[in-house]
Amino acid sequence: MRYELYYWPGIQGRGEYVRLALEEAAADYVDVALVPEHEGGGVPALDKYIEGEGVARPPFAPPFLKAGRQLIGQTANILLYLGSRHGLAPRDAAGKLWTHQLQLTLADFLVEVHDIHHPIGSGLYYEQQKPASRRRAADFRAQRLPKYLGYFERVLERNAEGSGLAGASVTYADLSLAQIVAGLRYALPRAAKKALRECPRIVALHDEVFARPRIKRYVASGRRLAFNNDDIFRRYPELDG
Amino acid sequence: MRYELYYWPGIQGRGEYVRLALEEAAADYVDVALVPEHEGGGVPALDKYIEGEGVARPPFAPPFLKAGRQLIGQTANILLYLGSRHGLAPRDAAGKLWTHQLQLTLADFLVEVHDIHHPIGSGLYYEQQKPASRRRAADFRAQRLPKYLGYFERVLERNAEGSGLAGASVTYADLSLAQIVAGLRYALPRAAKKALRECPRIVALHDEVFARPRIKRYVASGRRLAFNNDDIFRRYPELDG
Repeated sequence: MRYELYYWPGIQGRGEYVRLALEEAAADYVDVALVPEHEGGGVPALDKYIEGEGVARPPFAPPFLKAGRQLIGQTANILLYLGSRHGLAPRDAAGKLWTHQLQLTLADFLVEVHDIHHPIGSGLYYEQQKPASRRRAADFRAQRLPKYLGYFERVLERNAEGSGLAGASVTYADLSLAQIVAGLRYALPRAAKKALRECPRIVALHDEVFARPRIKRYVASGRRLAFNNDDIFRRYPELDG
Repeated sequence: MRYELYYWPGIQGRGEYVRLALEEAAADYVDVALVPEHEGGGVPALDKYIEGEGVARPPFAPPFLKAGRQLIGQTANILLYLGSRHGLAPRDAAGKLWTHQLQLTLADFLVEVHDIHHPIGSGLYYEQQKPASRRRAADFRAQRLPKYLGYFERVLERNAEGSGLAGASVTYADLSLAQIVAGLRYALPRAAKKALRECPRIVALHDEVFARPRIKRYVASGRRLAFNNDDIFRRYPELDG
């Protein structure tokens, strides 16, 4: 089965967490937004599912994944599905739930990363909310960033089975944490450097993930987009303290 | 098996989504924060799991549920677990994922409800972020509230099998949506009234849920706390437009 991934073109965004899992699984997939419109791709293909009146189970927002006849939305939910099918989560039910719990905490973390440049409204420009952004970013750097990273460092430390967050082998949550580290280093280089000094296990996990053969091949392929300031992780130096 | 629910005392908060599912399932559970400290309850019992060094799979934050030897965190993850065990989700795998997807969207909605009074930092007082709150609340009322409610109204409309969000019977997502309606009516009575005028199916679902015998019994028991301004839903008239 060839999966169809639906996500906005031009940014890594939340789609990247799904892409990293698909790449690590060596799954067959098409990134629909990158297919030309006249071949049924592009943004209209996304809109068809979000706005189409005939869609029985419409997604609220991208990313969503078409797997056969099933349409699956919400990043963590897609990863829950893929993790079971492709060995990117522990096999036992308790291990699967634990990995999903970690992914949901990573998703919460990511919302807070986004909101440092959009504290007032996601539909407004950054320029319309700069003073509030500075305050939210200061709080994020001082409180939230060390709290989240400290948590995941502890989880890594306590996993007796392997070097990742859960179980003995790599999971989708490991891929996602590595992606967040990469994003933080892009967006907040000073704050990330300082916070990661206390988190040697997270840094090692990041390096392990991006050294995995399939992830390396994906990054080298040119298909992985660069971080940019239309994305969740944005480099605004005034927010980096 | 008697479940142990761990959540902050004094507020409904995210614990209430779990409580409503446990009540509807007529499950045996103890609300640990309400047990006296000298009997092993209270906030110290929560801290033991959040901060304890011997906890192999520590939760990031309450609520979390102890089910036998398993400790399950993240509200939507707890509901995923309970939904399968207690018939509060469809039986087929695709229906389970769809219900979970809806729950994750409800969780996103709830974060945005919270952030209207805490746009700058969750560790600061509302009084320290009032101007930003007014702006965020205005954006929420104009853009986000109708967008989320419109989405769930559509999902209800398109479910051919029953009057709830997914499948033929009540699901935990139905209970959660009803709880959000109740919370919105408390926090933003004017905005909620206006937005819900366009959402007859959501209003009917709310009424159905709170008319269910076990939910009625729970509300009548006095165990359900009242909404209050230490909670996620807060009534600050200046944020209601």
